[in-house]
Amino acid sequence: MESKYLKSSNILMAQLNPISGDVEYNKNKAIEAIKTAKEKKADLVVFPELFLIGYPIGDILTRYPYISHQAQKALDEIKIYCENIAVLIGYPEINNDKFGKPYYNSMALIENGKIVKSIRKTLLPTYCEHNDYRYFESWNEEFENRIFTLNNVKYGVIICEDAWNDFEFFEKNLYKIDPVEKIANDVDVFLCPSASCTRAKKEQLKHNMMSHCAKKYSKKYIYVNQVGANDELVYDGLSRMYDEDGKLVAMAKSFEEDLAMVNLSLGGEINPLPKGLELTLNSQKEFSLDHKPDLERTYRTIIVAISDYFNKNGFKQAVLGLSGGLDSTVCAVLLADALGAENVFGISMPSKLTSLESKNDAKELANNLKINFLEIPIKDMCDLIKDKFSSMFDEISKNWCNRYTNSYTNDNIQARSRAMILWGIANEYGALPIATSDKSELYMGYATINGDMSGGYAPISDVVKTKLFALARWMNENRKTKNAIPISIINKPPGAELAIDPKTGKTLLAEDALMPYEFLDEVIWRIENLNQSKDNMLKQEFLYEKKNQVDKDTKLKWLNKFFKRLNTALYKWYIIPPGPVIDARSINKIEYKQPIISNIDYSN
Amino acid sequence: MESKYLKSSNILMAQLNPISGDVEYNKNKAIEAIKTAKEKKADLVVFPELFLIGYPIGDILTRYPYISHQAQKALDEIKIYCENIAVLIGYPEINNDKFGKPYYNSMALIENGKIVKSIRKTLLPTYCEHNDYRYFESWNEEFENRIFTLNNVKYGVIICEDAWNDFEFFEKNLYKIDPVEKIANDVDVFLCPSASCTRAKKEQLKHNMMSHCAKKYSKKYIYVNQVGANDELVYDGLSRMYDEDGKLVAMAKSFEEDLAMVNLSLGGEINPLPKGLELTLNSQKEFSLDHKPDLERTYRTIIVAISDYFNKNGFKQAVLGLSGGLDSTVCAVLLADALGAENVFGISMPSKLTSLESKNDAKELANNLKINFLEIPIKDMCDLIKDKFSSMFDEISKNWCNRYTNSYTNDNIQARSRAMILWGIANEYGALPIATSDKSELYMGYATINGDMSGGYAPISDVVKTKLFALARWMNENRKTKNAIPISIINKPPGAELAIDPKTGKTLLAEDALMPYEFLDEVIWRIENLNQSKDNMLKQEFLYEKKNQVDKDTKLKWLNKFFKRLNTALYKWYIIPPGPVIDARSINKIEYKQPIISNIDYSN
Repeated sequence: MESKYLKSSNILMAQLNPISGDVEYNKNKAIEAIKTAKEKKADLVVFPELFLIGYPIGDILTRYPYISHQAQKALDEIKIYCENIAVLIGYPEINNDKFGKPYYNSMALIENGKIVKSIRKTLLPTYCEHNDYRYFESWNEEFENRIFTLNNVKYGVIICEDAWNDFEFFEKNLYKIDPVEKIANDVDVFLCPSASCTRAKKEQLKHNMMSHCAKKYSKKYIYVNQVGANDELVYDGLSRMYDEDGKLVAMAKSFEEDLAMVNLSLGGEINPLPKGLELTLNSQKEFSLDHKPDLERTYRTIIVAISDYFNKNGFKQAVLGLSGGLDSTVCAVLLADALGAENVFGISMPSKLTSLESKNDAKELANNLKINFLEIPIKDMCDLIKDKFSSMFDEISKNWCNRYTNSYTNDNIQARSRAMILWGIANEYGALPIATSDKSELYMGYATINGDMSGGYAPISDVVKTKLFALARWMNENRKTKNAIPISIINKPPGAELAIDPKTGKTLLAEDALMPYEFLDEVIWRIENLNQSKDNMLKQEFLYEKKNQVDKDTKLKWLNKFFKRLNTALYKWYIIPPGPVIDARSINKIEYKQPIISNIDYSN
Repeated sequence: MESKYLKSSNILMAQLNPISGDVEYNKNKAIEAIKTAKEKKADLVVFPELFLIGYPIGDILTRYPYISHQAQKALDEIKIYCENIAVLIGYPEINNDKFGKPYYNSMALIENGKIVKSIRKTLLPTYCEHNDYRYFESWNEEFENRIFTLNNVKYGVIICEDAWNDFEFFEKNLYKIDPVEKIANDVDVFLCPSASCTRAKKEQLKHNMMSHCAKKYSKKYIYVNQVGANDELVYDGLSRMYDEDGKLVAMAKSFEEDLAMVNLSLGGEINPLPKGLELTLNSQKEFSLDHKPDLERTYRTIIVAISDYFNKNGFKQAVLGLSGGLDSTVCAVLLADALGAENVFGISMPSKLTSLESKNDAKELANNLKINFLEIPIKDMCDLIKDKFSSMFDEISKNWCNRYTNSYTNDNIQARSRAMILWGIANEYGALPIATSDKSELYMGYATINGDMSGGYAPISDVVKTKLFALARWMNENRKTKNAIPISIINKPPGAELAIDPKTGKTLLAEDALMPYEFLDEVIWRIENLNQSKDNMLKQEFLYEKKNQVDKDTKLKWLNKFFKRLNTALYKWYIIPPGPVIDARSINKIEYKQPIISNIDYSN
């Protein structure tokens, strides 16, 4: 087998970062890659799925259908550069039939300057972030059309989801067809162009599945992935090749563009995975506070998410409130690393409830990070608004008698005054304000509308609190500048410093207002990973219970509080700004859809 | 034919309003309907599609899968009430196979207290607001299973989308199978349980299609629709029956629950459509400023949307800013009608730019509507914030040199101060603040984040400005209290009163900041209905051009401005609160998906 590859068997995996809908930009990127491939003496260049329009594309395809014509024109231009080289590139192919969706999700095969054929995707995912079946017609005939021969090597093309339906590997299958099986006997090499975003646990699953497939059919397997971020979805690249034994023989870079060459006989360079990532699948069965194996991936995902969101939208600068608490601290570090410290302005906005320690922590953090810093006390604003409200409420109460005795009004005045300041800076300097809400608190609706949950981007909205603590420690150890985060920020218990706890006379701590974060994060984990009901959770022992004395009433109280707050949090999920998907399941809008008015009995 | 129906052929169309995810509530509603049906001597009760879990259901089915067990249990309880009556009721049927999506979208047939069989939907829509294929497996075999016989009448069940794929009626078909055709020869009556939301032009299309189908196959046709609103989607009911000639012989009420009985021989009561609705299809080909045929439907859609959003979420009271302008005025009228005037608080919040006329108009409107009213000047807040910002910006400019010379900062301080007040009232009284942005201005991003586009619900976010003017006039003529809207509000040109126009020295008018609304609304209409590019629009004559002198440069300038602003408006669409879908196409989140980072060449 080997000898026939020796002569010419160089494949360039064009792991690139497209912009959704920007055909001109993507086309130019493709042409540059093809030029490089020629210089490197590649025989074949493989681009990611739908590369010419980027992924995800959304309703652009249906609302502005002429971009599919732009893609067609781009193909015609690209083929001019394809003398003496073969190119496989993703584009939306118009379906001119009377029947079916308006497009196919296709790969154009260009050989010797001609578009030889178009290979169409069969399996069209609609789960999680995917929505392929909304736009594309499935092609499930003439499977031999997926095969082409180049220099005596037979390549078989499977497009992203086409590869994810092995009947042995998966216990359940979403589709009744396995396109891989249909062509396996007739090919030497599988080519799998994809747009597969990073998520917790996915890398290990992907590796196992692809390795299994290569070994099962004793074929080489080349996977070419998109890289970069589009709003909420971050693509990690990590294009690769497996040999016939299912052994990894080449791996492109993670989270950056890479024109990675592989040779069918010799393999290619093997770049490392983000540290620890190969360990993440085992955590699937049980909740763990050991977030370590996923921290480098999480960090790099958010960095790429921020930097691409800013770059692709034409923003350079960010502004955020620095409370001295964990959420804004982690956001500040991530922003400094993604955008450069000089492009970040941290604003400390103490109210009369802000402790001296918090103020100092914020200042020290900014100092360590070398980001711009300003302290703007908000007491004057809050006092004026509170006064104004006080007389206004007296008036309103003449007509409406249902005034709350314990409202969050004053808490929220503080959070909203801060957002007012950040958006003012946004308007004046074209900087993007950052929403600092974390996932644990979003699940509880523990975030102020037009306050801390307001902003242009929400970098940690899919990171739970216990993982944020681990991430803070990890960044202190692994960034160039060690220990940029003052240890006091990591050590102090979280609290919004918006209200006084009548029990302690001090500012209310988040865990007192909610429940212990270790418990809360496990509830979230059980919903997202095991789909458990409240009754189910009551019966199972939580990690927190193993370490602490928790009586049954307390556990029930926490669970009841969780599900009650969850129902009212849905509206906040609806209006939270975009942020990167990190976990295996998320509540980010690209993925999670639930009517706000819904009313669920979570008990069973 | 007729005689065989005479003995027993009464069918109750259970046009009801379920709550998504609330199986207990929906089950009880079903049982009550069955009891009523028995009293009325019905032989068969037909419920809408997926009635036991409500529509849309969203990711509840996958995240909280135990609700499908709750639905199964509910069926077991319901069947107890089904002695001597047949019932057809929608529920999510679990798919236990190795292959396919987790559920079927099914109708359970209950006869004599037993669940006789389950009939599964074949065509699973994923366009516009639909997402069926995300959760449901398509069933496209054993079409005879859809047929059942009751008192010698053969009924054939087609579930919502199953009915929308006639190969003759539609020029293009989304699917290769027509389930209607498959069973047509073997049935006497088509039963079409649905959850079909109201949209511009849809009623006429629906009528034509169903009438066509009844006539084509010479069968009776019974359509049972859901009613009520779930977040963004409003179901108009209008369940109905056609005879074998395609003639409408029964029509249930619009926009309200109705247990409407039809007799196969005699038909039933024919309730009227919202006035003018039968005229709307013809407007499909050309933009028109005559919004009249769609005004009653629009009004009633929004009324139901508001009242269900409030009721189902447990809110009673609304608060909104009254600027004296058209948007807040129309919202106030709609709120008063949906919630009762006593439950609405209108707050006039004049800044120093607010004209005396605006203040008076706001007050007069509130007076006419008998809603609660308060004037809270915001000059003090704006002055304090402006001062604060002034010194803050001096500080920031020491580090960042890119301060805009013409920023929107001061405009936005006013809008955000107002939202701060409304959310304060929300927090203090549990009232829901209202976002008053309209569709024309949302397309242009002409709305302030954390300002006028902030709120709990956005009632007019899918109504363009020219239609709002028409709606205001219509309400003045058709509401019980005539002319509640001061005519000066309708007559004055729109403007946000947030900034001074340097050219006139007066407050800037919206049409000067943007372009004429008549032109703007036609651009939107051409995108949503004809998918035209900028080049295409340049070539076509706009209605506005027929009535006014517009030179080519001006038209190009407007179009360029439109598409430039559109690109930056996407983020605002992402965070706008939910509002009812009204038009044939909308930018509401339930429907429209586009990556914010996307960059489209609209020229062609």
